[in-house]
Amino acid sequence: MGCKATLSLGPSPVTLHCEPTRKGGRMGEWLRSPIRGVLLDITGVLYESSAEHGTVIPGSVKAVNRLRESGMPFRLVTNETTTPTKVLLDKLRSFGYQLEERELFSPIPAVVKLLHQEQLVPHLLVHPKVEGELRVGEKGSPASCVVLGDAEDNFSYANLNSAFRALMVMPRPRLITLGYGRYYKHNQQLQLDVGVYAKALEFACGVESEVVGKPSPAFFNQALADMGVQAKEAVMVGDDISSDVEGAQKCGMRGVLVRTGKFTSSLLPHPTITPDCVVDNLAEAVDQILAAKGKN
Amino acid sequence: MGCKATLSLGPSPVTLHCEPTRKGGRMGEWLRSPIRGVLLDITGVLYESSAEHGTVIPGSVKAVNRLRESGMPFRLVTNETTTPTKVLLDKLRSFGYQLEERELFSPIPAVVKLLHQEQLVPHLLVHPKVEGELRVGEKGSPASCVVLGDAEDNFSYANLNSAFRALMVMPRPRLITLGYGRYYKHNQQLQLDVGVYAKALEFACGVESEVVGKPSPAFFNQALADMGVQAKEAVMVGDDISSDVEGAQKCGMRGVLVRTGKFTSSLLPHPTITPDCVVDNLAEAVDQILAAKGKN
Repeated sequence: MGCKATLSLGPSPVTLHCEPTRKGGRMGEWLRSPIRGVLLDITGVLYESSAEHGTVIPGSVKAVNRLRESGMPFRLVTNETTTPTKVLLDKLRSFGYQLEERELFSPIPAVVKLLHQEQLVPHLLVHPKVEGELRVGEKGSPASCVVLGDAEDNFSYANLNSAFRALMVMPRPRLITLGYGRYYKHNQQLQLDVGVYAKALEFACGVESEVVGKPSPAFFNQALADMGVQAKEAVMVGDDISSDVEGAQKCGMRGVLVRTGKFTSSLLPHPTITPDCVVDNLAEAVDQILAAKGKN
Repeated sequence: MGCKATLSLGPSPVTLHCEPTRKGGRMGEWLRSPIRGVLLDITGVLYESSAEHGTVIPGSVKAVNRLRESGMPFRLVTNETTTPTKVLLDKLRSFGYQLEERELFSPIPAVVKLLHQEQLVPHLLVHPKVEGELRVGEKGSPASCVVLGDAEDNFSYANLNSAFRALMVMPRPRLITLGYGRYYKHNQQLQLDVGVYAKALEFACGVESEVVGKPSPAFFNQALADMGVQAKEAVMVGDDISSDVEGAQKCGMRGVLVRTGKFTSSLLPHPTITPDCVVDNLAEAVDQILAAKGKN
């Protein structure tokens, strides 16, 4: 299957045509300019999330192995904040992914670094499993920011009110959100993501969120710098048309949307976002990227 | 105390000066054009909300009596949806207010009428106390809209997800919200209002809410029509700078802000909203309105 994409980076949109390379077709136009690094979303790209362990997405383990064998630099960039990074890594390894911790970029270490750097004391509204990692500052000190993560059932009316009141008494309210997604797929159904609650508190308090995680350019740039690759040479592969695809494009990368994870056909055509390519899954994206690599 | 207001209705703002009349001062400029009808917010203007019964605001019962004795038409317009209208009326009467049910305009009867008129089946995310009144349509029929009220503790993650999923499967998603407030004062502290959750679902689903209640012009106009008064001849007195003051002004009325209820001094000066007058309480607003009536 082929795809037609409008690159929305420059002032005048450029229409591109990408053809499948998997079955020996012509290289997609979106790959004419060489790819020297790849960023991969995790949930919905490497595995499907569920109440228990989740299930691996067929072909994705092999695709990651092929990237590594080809020498193509890659990093994992996730907004997953329902679980500590080490636990997530263990889960991915249990699916067969051979990954090192340094290859994974998550908002949790990034926000801990920010809190220390700016000597902020957070009021936390996060998942109970990651609260420990995010406790920064002396116990009993007044909060100087609110940190929102994928709190899931912790997003109660009482807890959202506490975060709201904490912001309302801060001399300079700061709302830091670990991602800005609308929803994700968990246990075969869509559920609300942290961005929805960030939006709610922004409206309640008249503040703007600071995003740590996708689609923040600072977050993408950290992973790009770690690979030593420029944005224009990189591609982000994800299942979130806003955080992954639009986020990557705004950062100067190419953005590829997979039809796994939270993807639904009603997403396309999107009124404002046009992925550089839409593929069935990670395996197809990697096929195209590596086929193009051979030709560049 | 005097106040200076910028009327933001026309294309070029008009600066007004209002002086107190309570102590025999000059009539406020905002009252130069005659007032022929008054709309009153309830919570934060007639009484302060609390976990138990609430407490009457000093001077407000007498102020309402004075309005009635003077022959000045008035109506109560509330976004209160945590309690059935009859229960709210009983509470107000227990404080000493002499009111008839027809004088009270609340979103609950308004939305029930809309649901019947448009043959909509609602997915409800409302307070348990008002669920019974809002159940419309045959049991088991698929929902064709989501109705959001002041659900308070019913605003759990699970319930917000259910409302989100209901919207996501509707061929033409309709999100109806009973008000669009940011927060209100309850039990001596601020708490999140229904507008915050409407905003959250708007962002999650990419839809726009339809507001039944303040600040919807249709809702204000219903009360104005009932008094037989035009918007330009009316004033709305409330403690919510957006729903009451800005809502009234956008509708063509004058909007007076009281320093009771959810009022906090940090609200003023507001970056975009300038009340026609700011008063200590309803008693002061009624003093000014009736003093001006005598002079017009």
